Amino acid sequence: MRYAAAFAGEPARLFDAHPSVSAVSAAQDAFIRATDFDRPTVVFDLDMLRAKYRALDEGLGDATIHFAVKANPAPEIIVAVAALGGQFDCASRGEIDLCLGLGVAPHRIAFGNTIKRASDIAHAHRMGVEQFAADAEEELHKIATHAPGARVIVRMLVEASEADWPLSRKFGCSRREALRLMDLGRWLGLDVAGISFHPGSQVREPRMWASALDAAHALWTEPAAAGHDLRILNIGGGFPAFYGEPMLRTEAYAAEVMRMVRHRFGTDVHVMAEPGRGLVAEAGVIVAEVVLVARKDQDDLARWVFLDIGKFSGLAETMDEAIRYQFETRHGGAETGPCILAGPSCDSADVLYEKRPVQLPLALESGDKVRILCTGAYTSSYSSVGFNGFPPLASVFLN
Amino acid sequence: MRYAAAFAGEPARLFDAHPSVSAVSAAQDAFIRATDFDRPTVVFDLDMLRAKYRALDEGLGDATIHFAVKANPAPEIIVAVAALGGQFDCASRGEIDLCLGLGVAPHRIAFGNTIKRASDIAHAHRMGVEQFAADAEEELHKIATHAPGARVIVRMLVEASEADWPLSRKFGCSRREALRLMDLGRWLGLDVAGISFHPGSQVREPRMWASALDAAHALWTEPAAAGHDLRILNIGGGFPAFYGEPMLRTEAYAAEVMRMVRHRFGTDVHVMAEPGRGLVAEAGVIVAEVVLVARKDQDDLARWVFLDIGKFSGLAETMDEAIRYQFETRHGGAETGPCILAGPSCDSADVLYEKRPVQLPLALESGDKVRILCTGAYTSSYSSVGFNGFPPLASVFLN
Repeated sequence: MRYAAAFAGEPARLFDAHPSVSAVSAAQDAFIRATDFDRPTVVFDLDMLRAKYRALDEGLGDATIHFAVKANPAPEIIVAVAALGGQFDCASRGEIDLCLGLGVAPHRIAFGNTIKRASDIAHAHRMGVEQFAADAEEELHKIATHAPGARVIVRMLVEASEADWPLSRKFGCSRREALRLMDLGRWLGLDVAGISFHPGSQVREPRMWASALDAAHALWTEPAAAGHDLRILNIGGGFPAFYGEPMLRTEAYAAEVMRMVRHRFGTDVHVMAEPGRGLVAEAGVIVAEVVLVARKDQDDLARWVFLDIGKFSGLAETMDEAIRYQFETRHGGAETGPCILAGPSCDSADVLYEKRPVQLPLALESGDKVRILCTGAYTSSYSSVGFNGFPPLASVFLN
Repeated sequence: MRYAAAFAGEPARLFDAHPSVSAVSAAQDAFIRATDFDRPTVVFDLDMLRAKYRALDEGLGDATIHFAVKANPAPEIIVAVAALGGQFDCASRGEIDLCLGLGVAPHRIAFGNTIKRASDIAHAHRMGVEQFAADAEEELHKIATHAPGARVIVRMLVEASEADWPLSRKFGCSRREALRLMDLGRWLGLDVAGISFHPGSQVREPRMWASALDAAHALWTEPAAAGHDLRILNIGGGFPAFYGEPMLRTEAYAAEVMRMVRHRFGTDVHVMAEPGRGLVAEAGVIVAEVVLVARKDQDDLARWVFLDIGKFSGLAETMDEAIRYQFETRHGGAETGPCILAGPSCDSADVLYEKRPVQLPLALESGDKVRILCTGAYTSSYSSVGFNGFPPLASVFLN
């Protein structure tokens, strides 16, 4: 893969920061140059995904990879991950049926959402899905009723997170509650097989896993004393994608996380990893277009740059400016200035970066194409069905 | 229309606050009771929309109503508004083609988005659309090239807003820039016909319009001195919907706003109003379901209540907890407690109300239906195409 320097803003910095990843592959670059896009489109290179999978797999050793389908539920991606031997973490009946419909065996699917409709639990159980997540008493009752005897992973709450996109308190329960749920699950005839936690999304450095792993290990030892046979540790996602900040190579990152896991839990525990962003983000690049460059007043220092894609048509993760995408234009290394970046809708909330403006070429103008790098995750499926009459983000798959 | 007291939490308060609106009509109530919903659905009563249109029309007098299609682009709604004599404010080529395809005459359509692709301007012009909005030099050039001689409305920036959902600085330009654009537009051969502003969305009281109208009037007088023939004042949207706060009756609210307009601008100016939320929100009620009620720890005071609808499947306007919806359950006036309300997806950002928890019945449990009131605007079209595998919000239209 060759970096498309002719189209680049700061290619050298990208290379130095993360030598294992080219932001845009030769195949993507060639396709983009040869195509006349009439709407925002993510160009996804399946070979980049395969390379990333292999790198993660190498680093993770004997841990199993369960792709978090929500990151990008495109059938092409699911088929590619399945062919590589991957398993699947599904958030809903819709995702489970999608995987099953593409030929994935049900025992390779885990129903990882702790919030499930009773009828969806029953459906998954009927289809052969064996593993379910839970973090609440009512959920255990639902699973015991609609998937009797199923394997259950109890999700614990990890409060301390250093991730770029921390997961708040929505998922998981306290350590005390987790122990109570394990006892209840056993009493209900379920196979309480392990625990899960999630360190947050986009955990940029392995050392940021330490506190979460410590908390998980503190919980791990007590149930054994109470007679529980825990054998599965689900370390969730958190594997990062390259958004411009320096990063370790994928293999080294994954290997270091596993070293930290094995140091605490030993070698007998089956470790599940659920990369979503970390597996698919870097393989996608969005091609968008500048619709308008404006100043609210001639004295304003920052320009407003409006793209044909925004928060409601694929870039939802710019919420609170948490995920900072990298942009490339045809103006390459030309002089830049600060820009407030916004989407095309008539909604004032559809502003991408305002608190921390983005540096873009002074020569930028309406009609210019813009490449938005590492946008293969949490983009197309986040698109609205047609807010303001704009169509959802289109996808193209190469290789 | 009769209020469905049997299903209600606090019906009396709703009546007192806003006697002209029943939160749920008899037709909606009957339909909901007779239907087994298998996914979140907004039940929209077109008769309520018609009543609201007539009330707004009565209050607005000789101002014309231009429905902001983005609030709910359902064909059923567009056809109903057209039959009532309404006109249309469109944000995109997609919305324009939608209206034209339903038989709306092009002169009843205004292209109100200030951010337009050049090819979309050309398309709208070719189809007969006559009026375009602009707030930037580059946009005027695009309009002059692709819709020569078109009628242009210059949008000005109104900084001071008291709206519940203020519009930031994304749209409009400074007063000085607006004057410069009017001169440029005339020089480019465009018909610079008036100005627009937007007071923000959900402006709860007429008095909150005063500062925006003052600012607009300050701009209005100068162009005349410079030889511009301004004859159209577009006062934007801002018309509120009932979310539980006390409100004036629709006719009285609209009449008071128009009194304030006429007091400043006289009777010769053609006034355009662009209600979106204010026209359609109250006519819709979402039927959703409780998926899980949980406590993170048995000592926690607040429960977490997870619905089968969330921020990515219809309730995007809960962003920053700006719009506070009202909820009804089968438990009526039973004892309540504080709940953190969240959607069903595996995304931690999918939390609806957490800073200010919602009071819901202590008896609430998984499987309970929940009615979310006044949700006919900015819900269905905001839905994601299928984030986490959950389908977009469904719609049903009555009457």
